[in-house]
Amino acid sequence: MARPITFLSDYGLTDEFAGVCRAVIARIAPDAQVIDLSHGIARHDVGQGAAVLANALGYSPAGVHLAVVDPGVGTERRAVAAAAAGDRHFVGPDNGLLSLALARFGGATEAVDISGTPVRLEPVSATFHGRDLFAPVAAHLALGEPLAGLGEPIDAATLVKIERGEPEIEPGTRLEAEVGHVDAFGNLSLIATAADADDAGLEVGNRLRVRGPRRSDEAVYALTFADADPGDTVLLVDSAYSLALAVNRGDASCQLDLAPGDRVVLTSM
Amino acid sequence: MARPITFLSDYGLTDEFAGVCRAVIARIAPDAQVIDLSHGIARHDVGQGAAVLANALGYSPAGVHLAVVDPGVGTERRAVAAAAAGDRHFVGPDNGLLSLALARFGGATEAVDISGTPVRLEPVSATFHGRDLFAPVAAHLALGEPLAGLGEPIDAATLVKIERGEPEIEPGTRLEAEVGHVDAFGNLSLIATAADADDAGLEVGNRLRVRGPRRSDEAVYALTFADADPGDTVLLVDSAYSLALAVNRGDASCQLDLAPGDRVVLTSM
Amino acid sequence: MARPITFLSDYGLTDEFAGVCRAVIARIAPDAQVIDLSHGIARHDVGQGAAVLANALGYSPAGVHLAVVDPGVGTERRAVAAAAAGDRHFVGPDNGLLSLALARFGGATEAVDISGTPVRLEPVSATFHGRDLFAPVAAHLALGEPLAGLGEPIDAATLVKIERGEPEIEPGTRLEAEVGHVDAFGNLSLIATAADADDAGLEVGNRLRVRGPRRSDEAVYALTFADADPGDTVLLVDSAYSLALAVNRGDASCQLDLAPGDRVVLTSM
Repeated sequence: MARPITFLSDYGLTDEFAGVCRAVIARIAPDAQVIDLSHGIARHDVGQGAAVLANALGYSPAGVHLAVVDPGVGTERRAVAAAAAGDRHFVGPDNGLLSLALARFGGATEAVDISGTPVRLEPVSATFHGRDLFAPVAAHLALGEPLAGLGEPIDAATLVKIERGEPEIEPGTRLEAEVGHVDAFGNLSLIATAADADDAGLEVGNRLRVRGPRRSDEAVYALTFADADPGDTVLLVDSAYSLALAVNRGDASCQLDLAPGDRVVLTSM
Repeated sequence: MARPITFLSDYGLTDEFAGVCRAVIARIAPDAQVIDLSHGIARHDVGQGAAVLANALGYSPAGVHLAVVDPGVGTERRAVAAAAAGDRHFVGPDNGLLSLALARFGGATEAVDISGTPVRLEPVSATFHGRDLFAPVAAHLALGEPLAGLGEPIDAATLVKIERGEPEIEPGTRLEAEVGHVDAFGNLSLIATAADADDAGLEVGNRLRVRGPRRSDEAVYALTFADADPGDTVLLVDSAYSLALAVNRGDASCQLDLAPGDRVVLTSM
Repeated sequence: MARPITFLSDYGLTDEFAGVCRAVIARIAPDAQVIDLSHGIARHDVGQGAAVLANALGYSPAGVHLAVVDPGVGTERRAVAAAAAGDRHFVGPDNGLLSLALARFGGATEAVDISGTPVRLEPVSATFHGRDLFAPVAAHLALGEPLAGLGEPIDAATLVKIERGEPEIEPGTRLEAEVGHVDAFGNLSLIATAADADDAGLEVGNRLRVRGPRRSDEAVYALTFADADPGDTVLLVDSAYSLALAVNRGDASCQLDLAPGDRVVLTSM
């Protein structure tokens, strides 16, 4: 029995790119279940892809984790496959996309460069490595083939890691955190947790001042949207257990003029 | 062998929410087939979700029917699972979403409150019960586990039912019907059938007057779009066997300024 | 064991149409794997659907190929199923949608008209043959039932073929090609190959003049996007091995004011 393959990309679902990758997998590993995590990562947004992948894999069965957000396709960036503890394998571009998920499972224990993998589809196109390199390698891993046969060994410590802005906390006073990603409703996920808010003296029920690079606002630190009036800004703990800024029935990203990478300062009022 | 799980939600496919639910199911019930009916229900539109679910399940295999359109997540609304005749189980919020489909299969024969289900994912988030409650319960039901072990028994008669505006007919004269939902092309599905049109004296081929709350129009009662000129309004029987107002190569919702819940009056000219 | 079914349509994923077809298939052929190639074909764009299908099936396992882009549903156009070499079956409307893919596999060896197929869902709606005719026939073919039992035999030579504009080449001088389709990013796929460019004297690295019906531009014939500056137009070989016009980080369709069916002339500068 083949192992399951989770699949995340920025291909979208308007074009056939994700579907063609599924077809390639079905031809090589007909019994492998493909679990589409998301194909709606913002185009070329490696940081969002890495964060969503790391979170989603916390809920996924072990197996093969295929991920493609690949602005550098056709350039010198490596195409890689890696193993981690718990019988998990990762396949994708070596641009940091896999790094947060790998870290979650203890880091890569083994890695190979698959640019010239013997299971590639020839001719390898310059623009669609999902089809020609990543999907075939994922399918062969799902069949239980050893990593070593699918590429050239590389030092797992050299895999590209993504930089994530860490929160800065003045105990009991302020929390400065980076916007990690924005979902389809404009909710802003911060790179910080409820524990960070606690350390900064922010308490559920309190009003806060929210200072971004371009705009300031007030917010309430609430348990759910329902604790705020429509149009009001709330700080809450989102489903990935990150702090998030949201607007009840509104778009926090627009209202606060914030985007991934921006830093916001939260203080009690 | 696990039973199949149909899955309908308003999560959309841009974010990873539906994908994470699929991952949760795959971890618990690796053999269960997940049939995505739609994740494009308009956000928080319980009425549309209920109507689409009831219609789609008429074409689906028996098994587990998971549905999540849940504007009240995190509030006091119950999370429930219910059994119906023909070996069907339903899982979702107790806000009416399941009620039209349950009615189609003879109503719930048994129901449990799953807010504290022993198969929940801890910690249960305030905003993502699809992942933490509904998907795990659906997966365990697909494995054949009894409903009684997955929650606290409740009176099935207390499950929330959705109100649907019934058509009003003056025999041979007029039909007043409520707009049920609007599809992605702007076609307006009415809560009325061809039999209702018949009772109201509307005949295929006739011209009609269509009176909505904000605008009036003329239409032809036709068998297909092709019987009308581009831009013309038609009344036809849609694929769910409801009467529907459509504009050939146009958007009836815009042209007639009608939305779900509006009532329209149809009379022969 | 049932054979896999690939599925392509213009249903989109906002409405439940593709999901209902999947449900119908699951009820008839529970073991058949459904591989969604794309449901994002532009509505009613038979030409785009035919091109995407032919390309995607080059990467798909043999089995049943279900395709629905059907502007003529409810009219006189035939509903058909056809067999081709290599144990492939095709199901869809007889409007040319299947023709490029059939040609790729050597043409249809056998065909039936399935308008009155014994496996249809009654009553057959006027607007949703995907559910009522095509999905049931695809599912029964996946179960290995013979084509002859699913419809009335017709002459395979009478299946509608799509017209595709062939490139015109003046050797060493110019290439005139038709725009085939536009992807979600505005990239323009031409109905011409790298060999055609070669015959017309266009060489990788050269600058070209691009003359469309409404606008002219300069472009560079490059291997990848990365060889052009942001905003610059490039001619490259896309992942389907067609020539394509693209704009690095931009939308070529807007920038060049080109749409499917337009012809463009490429000459070296």
